[in-house]
Amino acid sequence: MANPFDKAHELAKELQESEEFTKLKQLHEEINNDEVAKKMLDNFRQMQMELQQKQMQGEQISEEEVQQAQKQFEVVQQHEQIMKLMEEEQKMSQLVGDLNKIITEPLESLYGTEENQEG
Amino acid sequence: MANPFDKAHELAKELQESEEFTKLKQLHEEINNDEVAKKMLDNFRQMQMELQQKQMQGEQISEEEVQQAQKQFEVVQQHEQIMKLMEEEQKMSQLVGDLNKIITEPLESLYGTEENQEG
Ligand SMILES: [Ca+2]
Ligand SMILES: [Ca+2]
Repeated sequence: MANPFDKAHELAKELQESEEFTKLKQLHEEINNDEVAKKMLDNFRQMQMELQQKQMQGEQISEEEVQQAQKQFEVVQQHEQIMKLMEEEQKMSQLVGDLNKIITEPLESLYGTEENQEG
Repeated sequence: MANPFDKAHELAKELQESEEFTKLKQLHEEINNDEVAKKMLDNFRQMQMELQQKQMQGEQISEEEVQQAQKQFEVVQQHEQIMKLMEEEQKMSQLVGDLNKIITEPLESLYGTEENQEG
């Protein structure tokens, strides 16, 4: 009988050895070793998370908060390494999403959803 | 350079050949060929989806709707094949979740989340 777990471990290894992961890891380490950049990114993420939580709980986001968020985004936009990290995170997210689509294709076919659905 | 896509396709094949998928597919076909069971399941799913949407949109769910849902669940609970299907779907969902955890482990380590976080 097939053992998908062994294959999943192999895939994790491939992912870890991928160009995308290597770049992401390097940028991550660079920023972690740069106190100013790390603080800047931490603050930005903290703010993003707080706004997301408010949105999810249906709370109002004040104009002041929107302006503060924009300002903080303008600050991180000036930081080349942080912007690169965010780009690589976006690429990694896309990659993991694409892999996930491939893996769950048998299930999609079973339920006849999305592009597999015959008209 | 590593190619995670080939490995993802291999994993999809393993998943398709797994005991879990085989059982799920068989139950799915049995129910699709049984008009009464199919109708019962479709109605139940339709209702579940409607209630979930209401919850997500923060709409009130009436006592009548809760009672109707309970009644419909009691009906499907009497149907052995439907209950088996739901059990197998639960198992498949668990399996896909477990595989996903393995695959994204390198990323979890990078961000130091969950059990990888040192105290
Ligand atoms: Ca199909
Ligand atoms: Ca760690």
